[in-house]
Amino acid sequence: MNYDDFLELVKKRRSFRRFKSDPVPKEILEKVLEAARHSPSAGNSQPWEFVVVQDVATKKSITQSITSGYKKIRKADPTMYWAVAVQPHLSTAPVLIIVCGDRRLQETYPVHLPGEVLLRQSLAISIYTLQLAAASFGLATAWATMQTELREVQIRKLLGIPDVYTVDHIVPLGYPDEEKEKSDKALRPVRERASFRRELAEIVHYEHYDMGKFRSDEKIKEFIWSKTVTRIPRIK
Amino acid sequence: MNYDDFLELVKKRRSFRRFKSDPVPKEILEKVLEAARHSPSAGNSQPWEFVVVQDVATKKSITQSITSGYKKIRKADPTMYWAVAVQPHLSTAPVLIIVCGDRRLQETYPVHLPGEVLLRQSLAISIYTLQLAAASFGLATAWATMQTELREVQIRKLLGIPDVYTVDHIVPLGYPDEEKEKSDKALRPVRERASFRRELAEIVHYEHYDMGKFRSDEKIKEFIWSKTVTRIPRIK
Repeated sequence: MNYDDFLELVKKRRSFRRFKSDPVPKEILEKVLEAARHSPSAGNSQPWEFVVVQDVATKKSITQSITSGYKKIRKADPTMYWAVAVQPHLSTAPVLIIVCGDRRLQETYPVHLPGEVLLRQSLAISIYTLQLAAASFGLATAWATMQTELREVQIRKLLGIPDVYTVDHIVPLGYPDEEKEKSDKALRPVRERASFRRELAEIVHYEHYDMGKFRSDEKIKEFIWSKTVTRIPRIK
Repeated sequence: MNYDDFLELVKKRRSFRRFKSDPVPKEILEKVLEAARHSPSAGNSQPWEFVVVQDVATKKSITQSITSGYKKIRKADPTMYWAVAVQPHLSTAPVLIIVCGDRRLQETYPVHLPGEVLLRQSLAISIYTLQLAAASFGLATAWATMQTELREVQIRKLLGIPDVYTVDHIVPLGYPDEEKEKSDKALRPVRERASFRRELAEIVHYEHYDMGKFRSDEKIKEFIWSKTVTRIPRIK
């Protein structure tokens, strides 16, 4: 695999928020999971397990349980651009992949390092591998972040997942409905901002940190409100 | 980019612990960083910055500062298989990439989620993209985990990195010295274990968690001591 093809795949992968109802063929689903299986992990601990849900009723229950707490969460974070959230649309994806991590495998890691971080980083990498593999088939994915005690308990209960597992993300998988995404006005600024990346010269320092590239708190605030997909000013 | 080529790249990438002294051409180094730049991140926050160190004296100072605390750390974790550690060999790689994350960008993330986790997961993904791009050129990389207050403070001081940054990992980059790696007996079990992955049937559950696949604490312990690269019994 050459570099140019890989970079093209990295650029092609993005988060999709609307899915067609077309099913994902079983052999493609398995190939996507197979790629995730070969991910690297801290100490080669392989903490990941994947619960694949395609049953319509179960998908609905998952979505409902997550979004039931939304009113309270939205109130607590009024400047968040909630249109970006994948969670309310999870049940429309033909496949949901619930990514769990076995906390007991933290015993693999050197005791002086934060085991929780290494576990979560390993899980994120397996999700990214899965997403790149999906993109190679023209499939759409997204990151639905769990990572709250409330959400994790609910998902574990719904799917019979033992307590030793953390529920890190749910990854919806399906064919992208780009028309539907385009027709949603609230998603327009998200789409526009999603492909933006800071220039290489701004993020690379040679031999030591270059203070000429340091961003003031003001600049950071400006960046967050003009470039990220979660903080977008409302047009009145 | 097709799936088979991508999977081949995923399998080809592994952590290398011995490097040839041959320099990495500047245009390849920049391509590797360019790939990392296009990684996804929570909220598109792009928290990553990379300090690229090639100066021999600076590489030595970094390595010395990290390994100076080794005696104490090794004593605190006597069952860790320390031969796997990349840190003592960092100065032999032609390039060190210090991966920093700007903590202020956590304001991008929804307040109900753990910002530190999302930041660290975003950084891990950028490192993985960088490593896959490096592998596409036949280059070797590894993960040297920082993530302790002591190490982070030392690295920040050495390279003039402001306090707002976390130092997540150092990634050595260079051409692999496979002969040297093979001749190191202590690395043999690491090499043998590094490519092992659990079977797909063991890690995938359909519709709900399958308790038939649950591993007892005993089985987890057995797995850690027979399959991971950090816990390897000493042969007497």
